[in-house]
Amino acid sequence: MQNPIYCAEIDLKIPFHDADMMEIVWHGHYAKYFEIARCELLDRIDYNYLAMRDSGYDWPIIDLRIRYIKPAVFGRIVTVRAFLAEWEHRLKIDYSIIDAATGAKLAKGHTVQVAVDRRNREMCLESPPVLLKKLGVKP
Amino acid sequence: MQNPIYCAEIDLKIPFHDADMMEIVWHGHYAKYFEIARCELLDRIDYNYLAMRDSGYDWPIIDLRIRYIKPAVFGRIVTVRAFLAEWEHRLKIDYSIIDAATGAKLAKGHTVQVAVDRRNREMCLESPPVLLKKLGVKP
Amino acid sequence: MQNPIYCAEIDLKIPFHDADMMEIVWHGHYAKYFEIARCELLDRIDYNYLAMRDSGYDWPIIDLRIRYIKPAVFGRIVTVRAFLAEWEHRLKIDYSIIDAATGAKLAKGHTVQVAVDRRNREMCLESPPVLLKKLGVKP
Amino acid sequence: MQNPIYCAEIDLKIPFHDADMMEIVWHGHYAKYFEIARCELLDRIDYNYLAMRDSGYDWPIIDLRIRYIKPAVFGRIVTVRAFLAEWEHRLKIDYSIIDAATGAKLAKGHTVQVAVDRRNREMCLESPPVLLKKLGVKP
Repeated sequence: MQNPIYCAEIDLKIPFHDADMMEIVWHGHYAKYFEIARCELLDRIDYNYLAMRDSGYDWPIIDLRIRYIKPAVFGRIVTVRAFLAEWEHRLKIDYSIIDAATGAKLAKGHTVQVAVDRRNREMCLESPPVLLKKLGVKP
Repeated sequence: MQNPIYCAEIDLKIPFHDADMMEIVWHGHYAKYFEIARCELLDRIDYNYLAMRDSGYDWPIIDLRIRYIKPAVFGRIVTVRAFLAEWEHRLKIDYSIIDAATGAKLAKGHTVQVAVDRRNREMCLESPPVLLKKLGVKP
Repeated sequence: MQNPIYCAEIDLKIPFHDADMMEIVWHGHYAKYFEIARCELLDRIDYNYLAMRDSGYDWPIIDLRIRYIKPAVFGRIVTVRAFLAEWEHRLKIDYSIIDAATGAKLAKGHTVQVAVDRRNREMCLESPPVLLKKLGVKP
Repeated sequence: MQNPIYCAEIDLKIPFHDADMMEIVWHGHYAKYFEIARCELLDRIDYNYLAMRDSGYDWPIIDLRIRYIKPAVFGRIVTVRAFLAEWEHRLKIDYSIIDAATGAKLAKGHTVQVAVDRRNREMCLESPPVLLKKLGVKP
C-alpha cells in the first residue's frame, strides 16, 4: 500500500510466436513481459539477478498474479510498467501493460520475491541490508 | 468454495529447456503445466478448446494466480492436478503441483475463464447452457 | 547465391527467461530471435504475416538451420540481421546474430518458406506474383 | 552415415500453448520436442546433462536443422525418435517426428554437440573417453 518510489517502463512489439490459435497473446507469455520490465527496474536500483547472486542471496518468485483485461495481439506495441510496491520483508512489484497506441490497459498483476540465503538455503523473514542500501532507505 | 466434482491429473517430466540459470523451473513455465492439466480436465467433460469454439464461445483466461512453495528441478517427475472449482458464472479451476516421488507440494494456483460470445464478442455474465449440460448440472 | 536486396536489423536484450542451466541462451530460443528480425524484414517489404494471409497464401517454414558460434548470455544486447536471399520459388532468409558491443558473430542460419494456396492447401512451385510485386521485381 | 546403435522414442500430446495463429505448432517449438527425445536417449546411455557436467565437460549444441514436412496440430499425439548417428568427434543425433495415429512423418532433423572442457573452456576435437566408455565402444 506504499507509494512506489521506483519504477521502470519498457516497450515491446508483440511477436508472432507469442500469439495463440485464438490470435491473441497466450496468457502465460505475460510472465515474460513482466520479467523484462522487472529486470529493467532491478537494473535501475543496481540490484539485478547477477548482483543478487553476488550479494549472497537468491530472490525466487513465490507469487505471481495476472489479471487480463483486454487481449494483446500480434504486431501491437505494448508498454509494460513495473512499480516497486514493497521491499521491507519481501520484494513486491506491481505491473501494468498498456497498449502504446491507444493507452488502453490490457493487463495488470504483481510478483512477490523473497530473499534466500545462498549459504544455508534459508528464507529471510526480512529483506537483507544490501537491498535497503541499494534503495537508499538505510544508511 | 464448492466441492469440485471434476478433476484431472497428469504427470510430466521437467524438461531441460524449462530450467533457468538458478537451475530451477522458470516461474512462468508453470502456466504451461497448469494448461496441460486443464486441457485434460476439459477433455474429460467433453468441452475442450475446439468444442468451446464449435459451441459459439471463446473462454479466455482473465485471471492467473500461482503460488510457488518449493522449486521444481530438471528431470523430476511432477503430478499436476486440476479441480473444477466454479462453473455457474465463470470457469474457475484450482491446481496443485506435487513432486511425484516425494509427494511434496511444489506449487498451487488457479485460473479463471469467462465465456465470450463469438458473434458479438460480449462477455457472458452467466455460463452458457452448453457448459452446464456438459457438466450434467442442467437438463 | 544472389545478392540480397532487402535486409532488416533489430536489437534485443537477452532476457533472463531465455538463459538455461548452463547460463547461456537455450539453443531453441534463437528461432524466436530469427523470427523477430524476419517479421521486421517482411514489414519492410509490406508483406508481413497478415498481408500474406490477406493475399490468399500461407507461407509456412519448411526448413530451419542454426549454427551456434559463441554463446549469448543474459543481459547482453545482440543485433539480429535478416537478409532476403531467394524469392523466385521460395522465400529463403539468411540470418546472423552479432554481439552488439563487441561485434563478435554469435550465430548464423536460415529459414525457408514456401507459399501454400489457402483455397486448396496446395504448395506453390513458384512464388505467387504478389510477392514479386512487393519486391519490385515484376511489373 | 553410420548405423545408429542407440535410439530413444517418446510420445507427447501437442499442447495448446505450442500452436500459433495458423493453428499449427509454431516451428521453433520442435527444438523442444527434439530435446525431450534427446534427453531420453542420453538417459539411456547414462550420460545426461548432469552426468556430462560431472564428467568435466559441457556439450553445447553447435548445429540444429529441422525440416518440416506436414504440420503438427493441437491435441494430436506425436512420436519423437532420436538416433545416435555420430560420436567419435562430436555427438550427432538424428530425429524424426511421426503422427502417432497415422504414422505420417511430420518432421525430421538433427543436432550436433561438441565437448567443451569445463576447466579451460576449450572445444575438444575428439569426443572424450567418458562418452566412448558409456557407449561401450572403448574399454
